[in-house]
Amino acid sequence: MRGGLWSAAALACVMPAVVQAQEQVAGRWIVTVDYFGTPTVWTLTLKQDGATITGDLTGDVLTGTVKGNEIRFLAKDTVGGSEDVTARLVKGRITGEMLLVDGSEPTRTPHRLAFTAERPPEPASRPPMRHEFVPTRFYRQFSPSNPPALHVNPGDTIHTSTIDAAGIDAEGVRRAAPGNPQTGPFYIDGAMPGDTLVVRIRRLRLNRDTAISTNGMTERGQDARTAVRMAGTGKPVTWRLDRDKGIAMPEAPGDALKGYWVPVRPMLGGIGVAVDARPPAPGSGDVGRFGGNMDFNEMGEGTTVYLPVAVPGALLYFGDAHAAQGDGETTGDALETSMDVEVEVDLVRGKSAGQVRIETPAHLVAIGMEGSLDASFRAASSSMFGWLSADYGLAPADIAQIYGTAAEYRVSALPGRAAGMVLKIPKARLATLPGAKKP
Amino acid sequence: MRGGLWSAAALACVMPAVVQAQEQVAGRWIVTVDYFGTPTVWTLTLKQDGATITGDLTGDVLTGTVKGNEIRFLAKDTVGGSEDVTARLVKGRITGEMLLVDGSEPTRTPHRLAFTAERPPEPASRPPMRHEFVPTRFYRQFSPSNPPALHVNPGDTIHTSTIDAAGIDAEGVRRAAPGNPQTGPFYIDGAMPGDTLVVRIRRLRLNRDTAISTNGMTERGQDARTAVRMAGTGKPVTWRLDRDKGIAMPEAPGDALKGYWVPVRPMLGGIGVAVDARPPAPGSGDVGRFGGNMDFNEMGEGTTVYLPVAVPGALLYFGDAHAAQGDGETTGDALETSMDVEVEVDLVRGKSAGQVRIETPAHLVAIGMEGSLDASFRAASSSMFGWLSADYGLAPADIAQIYGTAAEYRVSALPGRAAGMVLKIPKARLATLPGAKKP
Repeated sequence: MRGGLWSAAALACVMPAVVQAQEQVAGRWIVTVDYFGTPTVWTLTLKQDGATITGDLTGDVLTGTVKGNEIRFLAKDTVGGSEDVTARLVKGRITGEMLLVDGSEPTRTPHRLAFTAERPPEPASRPPMRHEFVPTRFYRQFSPSNPPALHVNPGDTIHTSTIDAAGIDAEGVRRAAPGNPQTGPFYIDGAMPGDTLVVRIRRLRLNRDTAISTNGMTERGQDARTAVRMAGTGKPVTWRLDRDKGIAMPEAPGDALKGYWVPVRPMLGGIGVAVDARPPAPGSGDVGRFGGNMDFNEMGEGTTVYLPVAVPGALLYFGDAHAAQGDGETTGDALETSMDVEVEVDLVRGKSAGQVRIETPAHLVAIGMEGSLDASFRAASSSMFGWLSADYGLAPADIAQIYGTAAEYRVSALPGRAAGMVLKIPKARLATLPGAKKP
Repeated sequence: MRGGLWSAAALACVMPAVVQAQEQVAGRWIVTVDYFGTPTVWTLTLKQDGATITGDLTGDVLTGTVKGNEIRFLAKDTVGGSEDVTARLVKGRITGEMLLVDGSEPTRTPHRLAFTAERPPEPASRPPMRHEFVPTRFYRQFSPSNPPALHVNPGDTIHTSTIDAAGIDAEGVRRAAPGNPQTGPFYIDGAMPGDTLVVRIRRLRLNRDTAISTNGMTERGQDARTAVRMAGTGKPVTWRLDRDKGIAMPEAPGDALKGYWVPVRPMLGGIGVAVDARPPAPGSGDVGRFGGNMDFNEMGEGTTVYLPVAVPGALLYFGDAHAAQGDGETTGDALETSMDVEVEVDLVRGKSAGQVRIETPAHLVAIGMEGSLDASFRAASSSMFGWLSADYGLAPADIAQIYGTAAEYRVSALPGRAAGMVLKIPKARLATLPGAKKP
């Protein structure tokens, strides 16, 4: 494997071979390595030609042999790392050891690591179905280590609920510690690293009559004058949600704000997939290529989110629903509430943009989630370049003209580590192009 | 006068008094000072009680006497500066000298400066009228020194035209050097520093069939990957404007962009008033409290711009019209073209926000024009705080809740010195409030 702590080896130990009926080694495997106490998921793809096997182990090119149920191969990366593997296949499960040399370690000390490998769960052969899922546990990391809450097929629909950012459910009962606890993770059978998970938000409805917010301004939004003005604010505010009228009002407004109301516009603040096990798992307030706490107020009904799959099954999480939110979530807490959620999941196999893409009914949306609005502006612009180039066959100079005439830049979220900004391109403009994707 | 090169004095020379019929000294005067070769406009307000006069000279508090047509007073600021003035009033015009001590100069050397003062032109007593104005000169500074192109009353309408950013008019003829040459300046009779100029954009129509743009990306929008992609772009592109259909198309698109079109959405890139004479006048590509090259794509028909008046007559300039522009003017040049323009001007006397405010049919808009999107985000947020506080009686905690539920943040312009960002608050939300302004 290339890079980091995760490069590769030469195995010494030869395991005793027990004679068994020959099993098929070719195909895809999910490898679980015990990496110094951290169970870590890799992928293994094998091709067999007689006794010869080729393929890759998490991207490292391998060659080896298979003899009965005994497997031996050497995988190499491009920076001097390698994995020398000896294993056996018994009853559809590979068990073995690898001698791993990490090409990035100065000493290149070989490490002996145990692993197992299993076939990835393939989607059941059946028509798409709708799952009624009642969550009982909630998670605060986009972690690959949490047990799947439910296995679903690509094409299936999940009907479930989320609790609010503070951990309170529709009945007002605390169900988790505060900090955007997420529903899930949902294991999408057949999803493998390199695929794209498609999440279509079909339904997002209020399921209680209150939301919680604060009356302050996110620190990133305060200039010196605002900071002085805002001293002593940042206190909790309860909002009343009128589900019949579809509006929200502060429960106890002062005289000046009496009568203020906004239409509700339900959205998911958080939606993401598990990161792979190499870095420590990000918390439910974080954002990145895995999605996460994006707090973009157009993440509502009718929006589709494309997420790069990093681990087998993708492990989809969502939560932190808001009844309404201005651009930027300037109050730090939007109108935080629990929600009735229905999403349809799908899979684009073997293709990944490596970053989050969003599609609303009217727009393609690229999101920048960097440390400043300026950096996120550049990141969103760059991300959309890749999208328009790949899907519409446009050259940079063409794309520049589309931006110059049709770009819409909005602030998504500001309270967290990232100062999010999105670039929206109207689909109506792209529909005029020869390379336009047909719906 | 407080601060800068512009503080104040004690006059020695006593001028010979010629006996004349006594004229009225009370009221407002426009003072033109010859400041080391730069003609500089100050304001003078006088109250008379017998032989005693009080008032202020450009903010410095004065006391003095009037005897026949002879005027003497001493004006003082709060940092040790002063103006000691001796002058005479003859036929409605004051001529005199001042000994100015600049409180910020270490030596406080007194400077002897000549000045004249005249009554500000008051609006003619007549119903509002519509002026047909054909521009013959164009200006590339928001300068107080350019001669007024036309005197208008508050309430009047000006129908005129602008040439494009490159200096080309509706007939394709060069009329000025490139760099956003502006039509104007229009002198609004009665406008004085401390007032607010109201500019209602009534009509903004294409008057030719082409626009010029470029196919690059503003430097501020390029991350490293984009910079590599964009190498060799930034070339001119001609756009065809179909005035009947109201659409714009690149004249010679490549295969991938064939058929691309956008609806035209005419806007004024530049709209501003003259700065006072103290700083050097900003160029027509600059922005600030005077307005300027804001390049905000909602500055179209139906939009009202509020500008703080800095000099007598305000001196309104506008130009740099775009047929269409995406958020941020990412190409550096939007669809630059000439335009048929009609604006109605009005005046709010004695009241100024000290910064630009914008009102569209649906939104109040505050604009930040600082050096980064992050700073402009804060500036726009801070500016809107002032607006909602003053006009709607809202406390910071109230305003925070409005932002949190209804703020819309958009990028305005990026190519210049400023990375502009606007904060839009829907009027529909404010209409719910007890303190709402009635239309």
